Parts: sequence; structure tokens; C-alpha cells
Amino acid sequence: MQLLEERIRRDGVVRDGDVLKVDSFLNHQMDVVFFSELAKEFERLYHDCGVNKILTIEASGIGIACITAQTFGCPLVFAKKNKTLNIAGDVWTSKVHSYTHRRVYDIIVSKDFLGPNDRVLVIDDFLANGAALTGLIELVEQSGATLVGCGICIEKAFQPGGDMLRSKGIRVESLARVKSMSVENGIAFC
Amino acid sequence: MQLLEERIRRDGVVRDGDVLKVDSFLNHQMDVVFFSELAKEFERLYHDCGVNKILTIEASGIGIACITAQTFGCPLVFAKKNKTLNIAGDVWTSKVHSYTHRRVYDIIVSKDFLGPNDRVLVIDDFLANGAALTGLIELVEQSGATLVGCGICIEKAFQPGGDMLRSKGIRVESLARVKSMSVENGIAFC
Repeated sequence: MQLLEERIRRDGVVRDGDVLKVDSFLNHQMDVVFFSELAKEFERLYHDCGVNKILTIEASGIGIACITAQTFGCPLVFAKKNKTLNIAGDVWTSKVHSYTHRRVYDIIVSKDFLGPNDRVLVIDDFLANGAALTGLIELVEQSGATLVGCGICIEKAFQPGGDMLRSKGIRVESLARVKSMSVENGIAFC
Repeated sequence: MQLLEERIRRDGVVRDGDVLKVDSFLNHQMDVVFFSELAKEFERLYHDCGVNKILTIEASGIGIACITAQTFGCPLVFAKKNKTLNIAGDVWTSKVHSYTHRRVYDIIVSKDFLGPNDRVLVIDDFLANGAALTGLIELVEQSGATLVGCGICIEKAFQPGGDMLRSKGIRVESLARVKSMSVENGIAFC
């Protein structure tokens, strides 16, 4: 998606260690007006798939997932990383290895909000190793819901997550796919 | 706001320990279409205040804050509870005592995204003891930004947070104010 690639070129900052900082518009400060354009693109890609639920994971995915849910006119459910005292009862649960935080954590969704009647589009801001998406897809499978596909803002296509998921037959649509990046040479898209 | 009170009566569940579960529409599953109505009410209350930034705290506040930012046509910044490897450089920081998670944590916002030119509306889903709001307001004060006020979906008016903040001269607008609640007698609004 040209609009997103241009924005990444303009406002993204590459740091050592394969870090692409886009926190001025995507995942710390959020340009919600811009998000509407991304959401419309997800809607164009998945409009005929009967999506009736958006699923994401806290925290930085919630913004784009929220605007996407608005565009589809359906609810959003976000998976929680920590079991809070306020979620009682039965939950779907899986494990995610966070490379950013360097630890493994449980993610949960209440069984009340994900089940066999749901046709789920999983939305997230980044796809790199695919750890978060894999965890979310496991929740969908446990619940008996139908996974329609995944919508990603930025895929680091030089990392294995996207190819690994597509090789399993999962539809993954990424609005921008980074082929390579470095502090010296900047960003190249696929 | 009658619409929200009706929704709480219909879908909210009171549990022992002053817990009001509204996770079917507000803070786990999110009824984003409904959020638009809440956001319009925040816009009605604060439309003449020159708001140019929405501030909230991860994770459950991001959804309503996102739709509110869309209504105001301005960016959203959310305070993070954990310092990630991807946020380098200077941050505003304060401490929040979480009653839900029973611990104290640091919250941070990058100095890049909160400063003297910002007129900030703080949005959150709940107000009870005021711990999260107090922490967010401290970030605003540190940054030199102007605090326009706070917009809350549900205030537990029988807990001290709202009165404590208003007694300091801070404008706090809550769309639903719970006067009392119990498993036996249900919910009464102010």
C-alpha cells in the first residue's frame, strides 16, 4: 500500500537490531485519521469474507484493530497478556514468545467472546517472527471460530513469520512488506 | 448519559468486591459502533476547548480513546506500563498503584509526543480511586502541556477518585456515574 510505504519512509526510523520505530504514528502516538485509510484497505481485501469479529492482542494493536472493527461494523476482542482479577471463568489460552520483551507470556480471551459463530479477522501492527499471530490463531482454533485471515500493517518480510504462516495455508495480507532495512541504506519494500 | 446507563444495566454484571464487569462491550470485547456514541458525547462536552491530543493508558482505555481521537480529528498517545526495548531516549514517567493488579508500576510517554503545544484530553474507561488518572495528569504536567480535562466512561462515584480530582480544580466528565452497586440490589446511578 503506497500510502503506508510513503509514511514509513517519511516518519519511520531504522535502528540497529532490526528495529523499525514507527511510534510517531502507529504504535505509541497513533494517527487515527490515517488509520481510517489502512482500515479501508483491510475492508477492500476482506469485504466478501463475512467477517463478524476482529481479534488482536494488547496493547499496540488495539488502535488499528479498533478502527478496522469500525469499518467492518463488528466488535473487536483483544487478547490479554496477563490474567486480571476481573476475568473470571473459562478462557481460551495460548503462549507467546515476545522477542521485544524477551520472555514468554500467556495470552487469554474469555470464552464468552470467541466461539463457533465467529468469522475472525486477526489484526496486528507488526509481523516479524509470527509469534503473536501464531498465539492468536491458536485461540481462534481452540474456540471453534473460523479464521478468515490476518491483516498486518507492517511485515518484516526478511523475518520468517509471514512465510511460515502462508505455508500453512493461512491468508496473510500485509499493507507494507519490508524487504530489507539498515541504518545505512534505509528501507526497501517488496 | 442515558444510552450508556441503559447498556450497563443490560449487559453489566456486578460481582463481589465492587467489581463491575462490562467486558462484553467496553474493555475486553469492544462494541466499537457504540463507542462512536460515547465519543460524540465527549466531543459535545469538550468541543470548544481546543483539544489537539488524546491521552490514555494501555490497554483497555485505548479503544474508546481511539474512537474519541477520531471524533476530535487529533492523534492519540497511550502511556505504556512497561519500558520496552523499542522506546529509547527521554520519557515522561510517573507511578500508578493498580488495585486490579495489586502492584505499583511505572507509566511512560515519550517526550517526543507530549509537550507544551499540546492541549490534552485524558480518556479512560473507568475511574474509581483515580490512580491511573493521577499518573496520567502528572505526565501532562511534567511535559508542560495544558490539561483540558478528563473524559471517563464509567465513574464509581462511591469511590474517592472523582471527588479528589475535582477538588483540585480538574474538570472530570463521566458519562455514567455509579452511586452504588451490589450483587443483591443491582446498580444505581447518580
